[in-house]
Amino acid sequence: MFETPITVVGTVVTAPERRWVGDHQLIRFRVASNSRRRTADGDWEPGNSLYATVNCWGRLVTGVGAGLGKGDAVIVVGHLYTNEYEDRDGNRRSSSEIRATSVGPDLARCIASIDKRRHPEPAAQNTADGDDTGASSDGAAAEPDTDRGADLDDESGEVSAGLARSA
Amino acid sequence: MFETPITVVGTVVTAPERRWVGDHQLIRFRVASNSRRRTADGDWEPGNSLYATVNCWGRLVTGVGAGLGKGDAVIVVGHLYTNEYEDRDGNRRSSSEIRATSVGPDLARCIASIDKRRHPEPAAQNTADGDDTGASSDGAAAEPDTDRGADLDDESGEVSAGLARSA
Amino acid sequence: MFETPITVVGTVVTAPERRWVGDHQLIRFRVASNSRRRTADGDWEPGNSLYATVNCWGRLVTGVGAGLGKGDAVIVVGHLYTNEYEDRDGNRRSSSEIRATSVGPDLARCIASIDKRRHPEPAAQNTADGDDTGASSDGAAAEPDTDRGADLDDESGEVSAGLARSA
Amino acid sequence: MFETPITVVGTVVTAPERRWVGDHQLIRFRVASNSRRRTADGDWEPGNSLYATVNCWGRLVTGVGAGLGKGDAVIVVGHLYTNEYEDRDGNRRSSSEIRATSVGPDLARCIASIDKRRHPEPAAQNTADGDDTGASSDGAAAEPDTDRGADLDDESGEVSAGLARSA
Repeated sequence: MFETPITVVGTVVTAPERRWVGDHQLIRFRVASNSRRRTADGDWEPGNSLYATVNCWGRLVTGVGAGLGKGDAVIVVGHLYTNEYEDRDGNRRSSSEIRATSVGPDLARCIASIDKRRHPEPAAQNTADGDDTGASSDGAAAEPDTDRGADLDDESGEVSAGLARSA
Repeated sequence: MFETPITVVGTVVTAPERRWVGDHQLIRFRVASNSRRRTADGDWEPGNSLYATVNCWGRLVTGVGAGLGKGDAVIVVGHLYTNEYEDRDGNRRSSSEIRATSVGPDLARCIASIDKRRHPEPAAQNTADGDDTGASSDGAAAEPDTDRGADLDDESGEVSAGLARSA
Repeated sequence: MFETPITVVGTVVTAPERRWVGDHQLIRFRVASNSRRRTADGDWEPGNSLYATVNCWGRLVTGVGAGLGKGDAVIVVGHLYTNEYEDRDGNRRSSSEIRATSVGPDLARCIASIDKRRHPEPAAQNTADGDDTGASSDGAAAEPDTDRGADLDDESGEVSAGLARSA
Repeated sequence: MFETPITVVGTVVTAPERRWVGDHQLIRFRVASNSRRRTADGDWEPGNSLYATVNCWGRLVTGVGAGLGKGDAVIVVGHLYTNEYEDRDGNRRSSSEIRATSVGPDLARCIASIDKRRHPEPAAQNTADGDDTGASSDGAAAEPDTDRGADLDDESGEVSAGLARSA
């Protein structure tokens, strides 16, 4: 079966830790998501909470390392799995882990700005891909920008129509 | 049935447009996601593309308005629906639209930094909620920060154990 | 924040257990999802596994109770959360739980047939809704069938066009 | 970027059509999902609707062909993309399509029973995989059942503990 996709909208609750695993860098942090839901009376009540450990590899290491800290409002996209291990007392435990493919600050809850677009043009992007063995092995692929121009032209016409319609 | 949740990892392909709908501000843009997939030979080939119009209401207006532009690498989280309308020639058309609940730059493809955490403490957050009728009606609720301290203590122990294990 | 939506495609690995929680019936089972992924050589290798406890309330109790057993190929749709508890030795533990909103056999891995459509017409559906307090509180709402006829007419034309195109 | 995962919980609104595309069989149908949402007064109001064309390949053809018809309550899991085409009048149009990886009846809205488990044991499963070129190329892989026994033993203990706790 496929891996299980997941998106968690939550808060970074531990300082991201960076370390090496073999030849690859890894950044890990915990994310918490506390939900609330509307009752039959129209009030809000606290819902369930979700906690997971987020693992960032490859190109995510640079962006997450530069931009996120404990307390930040975050969107985490990736695949969910169960990590089974023994704790220091030999007890068998499990935790929810996410192998992240995309992570970003949640603009519904903070103000953020983009400092650097890493893939401004196709040529630069291809070079970056070649260097980035971590990312290429997990499929966090860059967009094939070569045909972007055509898409943009097509798309902009359609969007204009859509916006005009509801103006 | 529930609304259909979706997360799109893609690129902003039109300049975000801001306008008023009644008393509420709306920001709209188009997102494109071009996938690729690994073949039986281990090569990558272009996959399908997805285009959708993203509608940002409430608190997202501020963050998206301040931080995102055409060409940016973006994560869009929300609910997907079909917008049916007639174009200028009277033809019936439909487009995929997303009512966004969270949007952010994708740190796998750019460098971004958080300039302002809008909800630094519970008191401020509650006030913001009260002002923000757009957000409160669609459930893009803030986290109940009042019990954050306890979660953090609990969580940090668990995370330390997890990290220690694989060090 | 919203609850975290999740879909797990996996296998029922424990016999579903039915019991009463106050006035409501609950069916619980464990689901496992074992992924595999394609390597750079084009081979498949085992990926990570995911285990979760699935909680079925309201209208799901009837359908899951009648139709699913240990070993069955299943799709589970719902919201993911972390259940924190103390085990019999007083150790603090956590497990991944899903409050299911939809569950069904996976027709990619088994043959199943529908024995009974419970909501054949709007009148019957409304009655069922009134009886089903469990479902109505969590929003696992039935479709507003009253305008189904119009949708069908609209849709069928569009589908025909789509099919004709690629024939 | 990755393909965009999606799960639609809805209703089959056209009779599934089966045909050949080269050497592969395809089953196509339309799915509609009509949501409702709770208002600030605690009432339900109709939400947005989603329509998509569902494409079933490989092993799904058998299961969907045998088990689903127009009007059925369905769960569709797959990847979403935009299909751009010209209609009979030469107008450029687009539609939302899903390449399904798993499909099943929704036991929250119908009663279904499993007639045949197609992969009762690893040996049979491997043979089926070898025959099924359609499925193997899109990664709708079967579970590696060979180590299922061990998982079950591990898991059942944990589940018992979980159930005992809340009894």
